Amino acid sequence: MADPRFYSVAPPRSLRDLAAIAGATISDEAAADELVRDVAPLQDAGPEDISFFDGKKAYRDAFLESRAGACVVAPGDSADSPAGMILLAVADPHLGYARIAQAFYPSLDDPPTAQVEAVDPSAVLGAGVEVAPGAVIGPGAEIGAGSRIGANAVIGPGVCIGEGGFIGPLASVRYCLAGDRVRIAAGARIGEDGFGFALGAEGHVKVPQLGRVIIGNGVEIGANTTIDRGAGPDTVIGDGVIIDNLVQIAHNVRVGRNSIIVAQVGISGSTTIGDNVVIGGQAGIAGHLVLGDGVRIAAQSGVMTDIPAGATFGGSPALPQRDWFRQVAMLRRLTKKNLDDR
Amino acid sequence: MADPRFYSVAPPRSLRDLAAIAGATISDEAAADELVRDVAPLQDAGPEDISFFDGKKAYRDAFLESRAGACVVAPGDSADSPAGMILLAVADPHLGYARIAQAFYPSLDDPPTAQVEAVDPSAVLGAGVEVAPGAVIGPGAEIGAGSRIGANAVIGPGVCIGEGGFIGPLASVRYCLAGDRVRIAAGARIGEDGFGFALGAEGHVKVPQLGRVIIGNGVEIGANTTIDRGAGPDTVIGDGVIIDNLVQIAHNVRVGRNSIIVAQVGISGSTTIGDNVVIGGQAGIAGHLVLGDGVRIAAQSGVMTDIPAGATFGGSPALPQRDWFRQVAMLRRLTKKNLDDR
Amino acid sequence: MADPRFYSVAPPRSLRDLAAIAGATISDEAAADELVRDVAPLQDAGPEDISFFDGKKAYRDAFLESRAGACVVAPGDSADSPAGMILLAVADPHLGYARIAQAFYPSLDDPPTAQVEAVDPSAVLGAGVEVAPGAVIGPGAEIGAGSRIGANAVIGPGVCIGEGGFIGPLASVRYCLAGDRVRIAAGARIGEDGFGFALGAEGHVKVPQLGRVIIGNGVEIGANTTIDRGAGPDTVIGDGVIIDNLVQIAHNVRVGRNSIIVAQVGISGSTTIGDNVVIGGQAGIAGHLVLGDGVRIAAQSGVMTDIPAGATFGGSPALPQRDWFRQVAMLRRLTKKNLDDR
Repeated sequence: MADPRFYSVAPPRSLRDLAAIAGATISDEAAADELVRDVAPLQDAGPEDISFFDGKKAYRDAFLESRAGACVVAPGDSADSPAGMILLAVADPHLGYARIAQAFYPSLDDPPTAQVEAVDPSAVLGAGVEVAPGAVIGPGAEIGAGSRIGANAVIGPGVCIGEGGFIGPLASVRYCLAGDRVRIAAGARIGEDGFGFALGAEGHVKVPQLGRVIIGNGVEIGANTTIDRGAGPDTVIGDGVIIDNLVQIAHNVRVGRNSIIVAQVGISGSTTIGDNVVIGGQAGIAGHLVLGDGVRIAAQSGVMTDIPAGATFGGSPALPQRDWFRQVAMLRRLTKKNLDDR
Repeated sequence: MADPRFYSVAPPRSLRDLAAIAGATISDEAAADELVRDVAPLQDAGPEDISFFDGKKAYRDAFLESRAGACVVAPGDSADSPAGMILLAVADPHLGYARIAQAFYPSLDDPPTAQVEAVDPSAVLGAGVEVAPGAVIGPGAEIGAGSRIGANAVIGPGVCIGEGGFIGPLASVRYCLAGDRVRIAAGARIGEDGFGFALGAEGHVKVPQLGRVIIGNGVEIGANTTIDRGAGPDTVIGDGVIIDNLVQIAHNVRVGRNSIIVAQVGISGSTTIGDNVVIGGQAGIAGHLVLGDGVRIAAQSGVMTDIPAGATFGGSPALPQRDWFRQVAMLRRLTKKNLDDR
Repeated sequence: MADPRFYSVAPPRSLRDLAAIAGATISDEAAADELVRDVAPLQDAGPEDISFFDGKKAYRDAFLESRAGACVVAPGDSADSPAGMILLAVADPHLGYARIAQAFYPSLDDPPTAQVEAVDPSAVLGAGVEVAPGAVIGPGAEIGAGSRIGANAVIGPGVCIGEGGFIGPLASVRYCLAGDRVRIAAGARIGEDGFGFALGAEGHVKVPQLGRVIIGNGVEIGANTTIDRGAGPDTVIGDGVIIDNLVQIAHNVRVGRNSIIVAQVGISGSTTIGDNVVIGGQAGIAGHLVLGDGVRIAAQSGVMTDIPAGATFGGSPALPQRDWFRQVAMLRRLTKKNLDDR
């Protein structure tokens, strides 16, 4: 279930309704009047939730083990599915799911209540919290003891920030639960919409982004860095992680403890970064990858594959460091030779 | 003519004055007392406007077809010019134009009127518009029905935003006309100055940026993305375009309908992107290029050439996808061979 | 000494205390009761300051010429040191220094006084200064005549901005001394914490960032660009420098006069850029390098080495332009040949 501090779900709907919304066929007509209460990712869904499976190998296990009561799938994926799961088959399951999720969450940008005062009266501020001029704190937000909120910063409805934190001037923190001693520099954007779209007949269809950003203890986040909230799972930043300026972290990314991410790095959606990883400046990491503990990535690399724990990669597309060094050296020799031949 | 909602032009000036300001020679001394009312790009200029032509081949047709009454040119470009156009010849036409444009627009940053209240009384808010705490809306701005303005966001003087839009917290929208259902995430910067400078004897001379940002219907713009306003022409984002976080779009860029631009992409000035184009993360596109409809650009590519419709390019400098794949594969083989030789 | 307009130093401490804090051994026990008043970089430190030397060759001269009364060093660097300098030897001098600097500056984010009003009464505004709605100006800040502060911008405590400047909406300027005619676009972040950490037994230990950002006359800084303040030395942007959008400039970087830095460039810590340098979009410059006057760097380059004055470099890793062009051309030929061989 999407966190009710951030999202208000619409009333339950029948599978018949949802199939109509998604343009899908129900696998078991007898179940058409059963009610669905919410959308949820495969691994979190329960018997009253509907999820989706796009057929990608990486998610087949999660599909087969899912406890979702219903699931949007492609027609070809109907054969092998968990017992008792009702299937809604449609050519583009991601698009079908987008339409269903929009029905459950029709007005994502509405805060739970309209906010009139800069610091909403329902916000809870711990002992010694300092709020600089112009800062806006939304309904139901909780700021732990000793934390300071910078000038003109914006803390969204329901956000929780632990003790001893510092939110820089003009930063925004929305849809987020943060631990203690978190430092977020000026202009960082925590919890904006992930980049989630399905391709519909008349253009792009937005997939409601229903997750949060979970930030561990002692995390530092640089100026103007952007960390999108999860699409349904959460985006997770582990304890002690240090993130430099102008970094982009997409929805559903998980970063392990004490990892270091240098300026202008981009990490695409649903990628998992291990503990104690170091990613050099301007490197890009593709989506749905796994980088093991202690991995090191050279600056400006383009990572397109999983990387085992402890490995160092460089280049674009990125290779193991020795191969990358060899490639660079060989290119220089060839260029030289080519010149000598003239 | 620069949009009077955003720019106030100074009184008309004689060609004699303008030639003196630019350090230029008038092609027809008899015309020296004629008055010029404004600066304008070649394609928009009329008989009372002055434009400039820097000699670049890409703009020669626009020069030859221009209806501008006067034009700053290099001495060598005086021979072949439209009949009746008065020429102001100077060694660096861009610099000469910069000085003239500064004379017509001496105080670019002044809003039309000084603003005292956060929501200026002259702003027009449609039915159901919600303005969160701390948001600033400038004189003469118009916000369409049902649009919501986030906390501490800034809407500049004269800006028009259509119906059902959402401007995120701490975003700024200036010198911009936006359609319906536009979503702009937190911290995006719409309508800042383009990067326009001419090289003068005593350092860089700023070229006044007199265009706007035109945003179509249903456009989504990510967190901390920057879209500069046009230099004279406009910067144009077509209907249904989706732009991710931390993207840079320079002045005069045109992006066609339903194109998708992934995080940290940079598009240089005056480049035209077709419809349904997809540009992968961290790619860079040089200036003054044309990418046709349906083009796809791999992540981290560096595009230095025009690309025909439907083509897929990758690498830096970017090549057609097959050549790029071949190059990557060949490099790996050579590196391997090189190693085996040892 | 850190600038008292921005930083409040704790009372003096004995070398014995500091050695305990750093886990270090004092070279001269007889000096253990001597008081140290502050931390300082090697080149600025005086007899009452403590500095550190991490053994890097690039800083050995600064170490040998330093007038610091005490210095944290690695045990192996104790032999060759300036006469009279007390050494605190510890395995990781950077970490030891971080702990000592934290002791002298325990609460970095505290402004000198708590600010209640948006424009603090102790701020000094010159003639004709305009402050737009929502802007916050901290205690002791000074804004020169004719400068304008945009809506919801934040000027930190003690900041000085010269005459005729323009600070865009939602920009933040902290720990900064800026000259005349400075233009800072919306959302730029001037003076945030540099990325300075030492590796401790229980995670990263923050190195207090005690420098400033010094901005010359006539500088332009683009939207959402980030310029970190120095770690102890300052970050310095020379007269007439033009910086585009989304650029990252790390702590201690020095940029010479009239240089141009295009969008999305990243410059790592302690690198020095000469006068009249041009750096193309998305290029990355590693740390601790020197780029001479008039250097030109192609877009998307990755600079890993010093570059002599007047040279043009391109590629990643960056090479002299001719070598880079040759490499690109050779790769294309080889790919072609490779294809013909099939």
